[in-house]
Amino acid sequence: MDLKELISVARGEMPADLLLKNARIVNTFSGEIEQADVAVYGDKIAGVGDYDKAKEIIDLQGRFLAPGLINGHTHIESSMLHPARYAQAVVPRGTLAVVTDLHEIANVCGSEGIKFVTDLARKLPLDMLFMAPSCVPATHLETSGAQISSNEVKRILAHPKIIGLGEMMNFPGVISGDEEVLKKISASKGKIIDGHAPGLTGKELNAYLSAGILSDHESTTLEEGKEKLRRGMHLMIREGSSEKNLDALLPLVTDDTYKRCFFVVDDRSCSDLLWEGDIDAVVRKAIDRGLEPVRAIQMATINAAEYFRLYDRGGIGPGYIANLITITDLAELEIDMVFYRGKLVARQGKPLFSPPPLTLELRDTVRIKSPTAKSLKIPLPRWEGLGEGETSDEAYPVIEIVP
Amino acid sequence: MDLKELISVARGEMPADLLLKNARIVNTFSGEIEQADVAVYGDKIAGVGDYDKAKEIIDLQGRFLAPGLINGHTHIESSMLHPARYAQAVVPRGTLAVVTDLHEIANVCGSEGIKFVTDLARKLPLDMLFMAPSCVPATHLETSGAQISSNEVKRILAHPKIIGLGEMMNFPGVISGDEEVLKKISASKGKIIDGHAPGLTGKELNAYLSAGILSDHESTTLEEGKEKLRRGMHLMIREGSSEKNLDALLPLVTDDTYKRCFFVVDDRSCSDLLWEGDIDAVVRKAIDRGLEPVRAIQMATINAAEYFRLYDRGGIGPGYIANLITITDLAELEIDMVFYRGKLVARQGKPLFSPPPLTLELRDTVRIKSPTAKSLKIPLPRWEGLGEGETSDEAYPVIEIVP
Repeated sequence: MDLKELISVARGEMPADLLLKNARIVNTFSGEIEQADVAVYGDKIAGVGDYDKAKEIIDLQGRFLAPGLINGHTHIESSMLHPARYAQAVVPRGTLAVVTDLHEIANVCGSEGIKFVTDLARKLPLDMLFMAPSCVPATHLETSGAQISSNEVKRILAHPKIIGLGEMMNFPGVISGDEEVLKKISASKGKIIDGHAPGLTGKELNAYLSAGILSDHESTTLEEGKEKLRRGMHLMIREGSSEKNLDALLPLVTDDTYKRCFFVVDDRSCSDLLWEGDIDAVVRKAIDRGLEPVRAIQMATINAAEYFRLYDRGGIGPGYIANLITITDLAELEIDMVFYRGKLVARQGKPLFSPPPLTLELRDTVRIKSPTAKSLKIPLPRWEGLGEGETSDEAYPVIEIVP
Repeated sequence: MDLKELISVARGEMPADLLLKNARIVNTFSGEIEQADVAVYGDKIAGVGDYDKAKEIIDLQGRFLAPGLINGHTHIESSMLHPARYAQAVVPRGTLAVVTDLHEIANVCGSEGIKFVTDLARKLPLDMLFMAPSCVPATHLETSGAQISSNEVKRILAHPKIIGLGEMMNFPGVISGDEEVLKKISASKGKIIDGHAPGLTGKELNAYLSAGILSDHESTTLEEGKEKLRRGMHLMIREGSSEKNLDALLPLVTDDTYKRCFFVVDDRSCSDLLWEGDIDAVVRKAIDRGLEPVRAIQMATINAAEYFRLYDRGGIGPGYIANLITITDLAELEIDMVFYRGKLVARQGKPLFSPPPLTLELRDTVRIKSPTAKSLKIPLPRWEGLGEGETSDEAYPVIEIVP
């Protein structure tokens, strides 16, 4: 990308590579819908206004044009898809940037697993941004395939695509000042540190945040979300396959707070991606629950971009990366065309790109013994959770009985 | 600062160094007023909530507590004060961070002038953050004491206190793709690049922004400010000694846009600093014109902090730098105590710190010949601006006649 050429296109002298005429722009900077043309040169937006000259012109005839959606927190492994298949699933949904904490693959394969995904990501029409896993294994009770120490975290953070430290699930470790945990945090100084602190409140929440943790995606109640916002956390509103927090947290999104809130999916299964969607599904649900569509799109674009310090994403402005989606019906968020860095990569829900050939790396890395009937048996007589006067015939350590 | 100790104070175990009890906090995260205590340890805020243990306790008895004010753009030289005297003037006004583009001193003394101020800044109870001057001299018509080339800009930007490239006044150079100008911009990649583009509109504005320029403090009309916001610029609303743009631009500050707007003074004289104030005067004026006080304070604190990527400033939250001001009357912004990094440095408008001894460096660096009556004469016969049929007795190249 030659800056002088980009400027010349913006000035209206050199022809754009792609000109999207007659767009109704979802202007995430000003919160308005604005009628204009968008001139794209290379992978960037050159200008927004009245443009004519271009190698390729698409007349949007008043369709809406929004920045590509950003999924602020997920573990792509939870989709159960290979990263290339994952891209084919989410890109037609308008997701053009995803921040992923690879702690599942790292749990099994360590740094080698992380390298596998970061290498592959370069070949996909989707900006994958990575957080260094902070808690591998998640607890010391886990039999994991790898451990990631503070030294390893430091090494991983040096990679340019690793933009911060992933969700610090070990909040008891932070609060108690565990040395190894604090070393991981110190190694991330100046970068983003994501939080994960279900139910944390009062002085313990203060202690957790004083270490420099910036966000949370684990709030499930209004009061919890409100306290976290007040203490300065950015609120990731999660709508995953199992955890769904939008209904509880949406009342927190006001004129005063919305800029510090954005959407994430955390764990979303491939069937949910297929039938409901990705971040687009969350935006649709938020609009359905009464959130103004432009604001819902701001939350799914520029708000996440600002939190993750992606200064050339989340908006349609000169100099921004040309990640764009066209929308037929704004309230229904019907996405038609998807442009990744200026190239059409999906249309009408179908990917227009082939994934790189699948390889056989990292296969057969999850090893468990075949279960037998015996391995599912709960040895009741040895279980010590019986109340006084109860016999082992009456008490079962279960979460719920499905009759 | 030991992180483990900070966490312990936040947890309520170790005593705080300073405890501000019964504050009415101007919560810039949530836009509310919140009743709470603030525990400070070293130069940081440890916790916000109910705290008791501290070496020193100040009962604020319900007075307001806000983050230190941030002046987003100024040339401190315009105050006509030595930097140490400047700090004595603005710190009692609540200014605890100032972003300054040293292009005046650089115009006279080059990099040596910049070094003089950056060295001195370390000794002052005021966070001075610097922008590398982009346009020294401001025009080729100027007889300046120094020139700052793109190579020199690159060298200056390597200094950790230099957070970006100062106002790019040479907008014709950007728009026309001037090589040396674009080199300065490329050298600033990944850092903040401030703009300065009076009256720029349409394709020329797009061209200017496509180069990566992020902000503007030169808007004087509503339409101009609106277009710049729409194109993605951050709007610095300027209230200097000569240029006053608040009345024209305040209608632009809405629920949708306020996060991208903040206050600057650009050039403010020492007498204005003394009699009216600094950023505090702008906040007062904005409140007087109808802006909600909490929002006015957000613009003077967290909005500027976010634009300048000062992630631990602009809010009262655990882990944030303890730059704090107490306010007796919110609507009048009557500032009483000023805490810089946890230490009381001003009270009731008076500085409680002595400036470092003044030195004799950089004296006698502005050299002009003594003017005579003759040097003020305009040699009319040689002036070529006469219209057809006019004689030199009738036409004068003046801006305004003061009778």
